[in-house]
Formats: sequence, structure tokens, C-alpha cells
Amino acid sequence: MTRPKTRTDIRTVAFDADDTLWHHQNLFEETQEKFRALLRPYHPDAWINENLHDTEMRNLRHFGYGVKGFMLSMVETAIQLTEGRIQGSEIQKILDLGKDMLERPVELMPGVAQVLATLAQQFELMVITKGDLFDQETKLARSGLGAHFSTIEVVSEKNAATYAAILKRHSIGPAHFLMVGNSLKSDIEPVLQIGGRAVHIPYELQWSHDQVEGMSANTHDYFEITALSELPGLLKKIDDKP
Amino acid sequence: MTRPKTRTDIRTVAFDADDTLWHHQNLFEETQEKFRALLRPYHPDAWINENLHDTEMRNLRHFGYGVKGFMLSMVETAIQLTEGRIQGSEIQKILDLGKDMLERPVELMPGVAQVLATLAQQFELMVITKGDLFDQETKLARSGLGAHFSTIEVVSEKNAATYAAILKRHSIGPAHFLMVGNSLKSDIEPVLQIGGRAVHIPYELQWSHDQVEGMSANTHDYFEITALSELPGLLKKIDDKP
Repeated sequence: MTRPKTRTDIRTVAFDADDTLWHHQNLFEETQEKFRALLRPYHPDAWINENLHDTEMRNLRHFGYGVKGFMLSMVETAIQLTEGRIQGSEIQKILDLGKDMLERPVELMPGVAQVLATLAQQFELMVITKGDLFDQETKLARSGLGAHFSTIEVVSEKNAATYAAILKRHSIGPAHFLMVGNSLKSDIEPVLQIGGRAVHIPYELQWSHDQVEGMSANTHDYFEITALSELPGLLKKIDDKP
Repeated sequence: MTRPKTRTDIRTVAFDADDTLWHHQNLFEETQEKFRALLRPYHPDAWINENLHDTEMRNLRHFGYGVKGFMLSMVETAIQLTEGRIQGSEIQKILDLGKDMLERPVELMPGVAQVLATLAQQFELMVITKGDLFDQETKLARSGLGAHFSTIEVVSEKNAATYAAILKRHSIGPAHFLMVGNSLKSDIEPVLQIGGRAVHIPYELQWSHDQVEGMSANTHDYFEITALSELPGLLKKIDDKP
């Protein structure tokens, strides 16, 4: 495919997946509410939340990111909070909550298919996502968006070294690379560190893990938009600058 | 690095990881024995094995391959086989068995570091492994073998399409590619299908899932050796053929 000549030097636009291309955090919130309901006879909500969060953080080094690790952390939290008295039948309910997360139809962000189709005419499109390989691949397959992307990269951690390795592998100079995502910590900060450009699209629900203290589009050299549908316009604006 | 000129046309040697570079199946067997011990008061061993296997196969489409999925399947099997009566404290023991699997020192195959150091002088070395991204990356890091490999590919399924995509991405012609692994189904058959070459090193413990009916080195065009230490000699022999 020949690409129209433009004045922009951005050639590759890479997208985060969860909470950038499709909703994800709302599914976690919904599942956590059902999990709290299960343990509400034993403990107040705040205590359940705190313990689940602590268990997840403690287990990150064992499990990494993703739904399967989250399922295991829910099971472990339920055991701890009931001092081992919880019955297998209730733990099965927790497993079913997790399987439901894995099976849910992928709920795309508004206009995402149209935006990708537009951008694919001018840019090489990639997905760079963190998490569970199997889960991310099946979600991408179910999303119907796969054909827009020349490359899918599922990584276990998104830091400057990860991005540098991906760009090197695909022979992309950082000046020609723009990353789009909802997480300042994973999608914006490390990309700026290696000299790439970044567009932040904050998600309605922010995971505390995703935030970077003192970082904003006013103090740092990245762009911020409120919805994916604004991306083609923003890229055109960057493009039109002399 | 300049590579010595040889008459062989193999340029890239790719290795499966679990049960090829390091022991893996024995850890599963050991864990399953501990799992059976936990459920022995309720059921005979054969019945536990059969149910665990069925649960794993049923859950593959949810979880893919890897230790986290195996942990979830053990928990689910224990709940089923006790009709939900198993206590949380016993399920915690199952979670601890899984975490122990994830933390264990990586037990390398005999001579693997030496073999890789030798081959790296002549060939581009890759790892192509199936399973959980996070788990495989941490195992490779713990193995100390990472520096020998130019590329690590963790994939969710090893079929002809997967291998074709990897070779395309790295601009490797199938005639220049040789895969080494313990699974006829995942490491040998699909590589032969795309025109690559393959070396089978059977593992002492064979997972039934890895076998291919009617396939042997006598009827199919691949090599078979009994240990990784024989690989440099085999490659030299292939090399010396006119």
C-alpha cells in the first residue's frame, strides 16, 4: 500500500488495548462488586477492597497482570478474610465470576473501528498491550479490530526498555513513533523517555496503579484528548504544524 | 559478530523451552502427586487424575496454557470432587502448590549452557515457547540463558501459522530454519509443514497432548536425538553432507 505523503514525521501509531480500544476497568469494577457481595456477610466493603488490593500487589511477582492472576488473588483474599472457613461452593462462584470476565463480549470504545480505518490509510498501526498473552489475543480476535494492525505486541511490563526493544525490532525511530493510551505510567511516561510522542486519553475509571504523581499535559510534552474519536483531528493538527 | 562460513544452509536454530531447555513436566507431575494426596481421603487416584485432566481440557479455551490456568483447574477439580465441601484452608494449600511451581529454581537440562554457547558462534538462536508470557519470561531470566538468544517468542499456540508468522517477521526462509523441541505436535509437525527442519528430543515424561499418532523419525523427515548435548554433533553431520 502506498501512503499519501504528509508533512508529519509520525509513521507508526501504537495503541494500548484495555481501556483505550475497549472497556476493561469497568468489568473489573463490576466483578469486584460481586466479589464484595459474596464476602459482605463477613466484612465491610472497605476492608474487602483493601485486602484484595494488597493480595493483588503481593501476587504481582508471581502472576503478572491479567484476569487469571486476578481470579487467583480473589480466591486467596476470600480464604484469608474468612480465616479458611469459606466453602468450596462459594469459591466456585468466584471462579465463575472470572470466567465470565474472560468470556464477555468485547465492548469497544465509541467510534474505534472508524478511527482505526481512517488512520490505517496514513500510518502503520500497532497494538502494544500489557497482560496475559492468551487473554489479550482472544480479546483482539473477538474485537474484530485485528485486521487494522500490522503488529500486535503483548508484553509483561511497559517500561522504557520494553518500548525501546519493540522500536528496535521493527526498525522504527522514536521520532516516527506515537503511542496512544490511558495510562500515564505505562503508555505515556516511558514513551517520552525514549524520545517518542504520546497521546493520553484518560479513562473514566482510573486505576491508582496507572497514575504518575505531578505529571500532566501542561508540564510534560504529550497530548491529551478526551476520546479516541478526537485522534484523527489531533494527528492532522500535529501534521499541519510547520 | 562475523560467523564462520559453513556449507550448511541452516542459519537459525530455535528452541522450545519447557522440557527442552529445562525440566518442566516433572514439576507438574510432582505437584499433581501432592494434589492427589490432598484429595486421597475422598477419591481414588485414577478418578482424581481423570477429573483434573478433563477440567484442564475444558478450561483451555478460557485459560490457555500455563501454571496459572493449571492452578485454577486444580482448585475447580477439588471443589467438584468434594461437591463443594472442601474448606478454604485446603484450597489455600493448592494455591501454595502453584506458587511453589512458579518460584522454583529453573532446573536446566544437562549441558545446555555449553551447547548454546557453542551453537551461538555459528547460528542465530531463538526461543519459541508456548504458555504464559509472564511465567516464561521470568523462567528465562532465572535460567541465566537469556544472553544466548537473539529473540524470544512466547506464543499462545504453536501451529504452522504461528511458525510462518515468526519466520516472516524475522525474514527467515524456512530452509534456513531448524526447530528443536520435545513435542511432536508443537515443535516438529508444524515446522515440517512449513518447510523447516526439526530435531525431536523426547522428554522422559510425555504429556499425551504432545503426541502425534503414527509420527516417527522413520516415517517423517526430522531428526531425533536423546539429549541436547548431541545437538552440536548432529548439526555438524547435517552440515557435512554434500
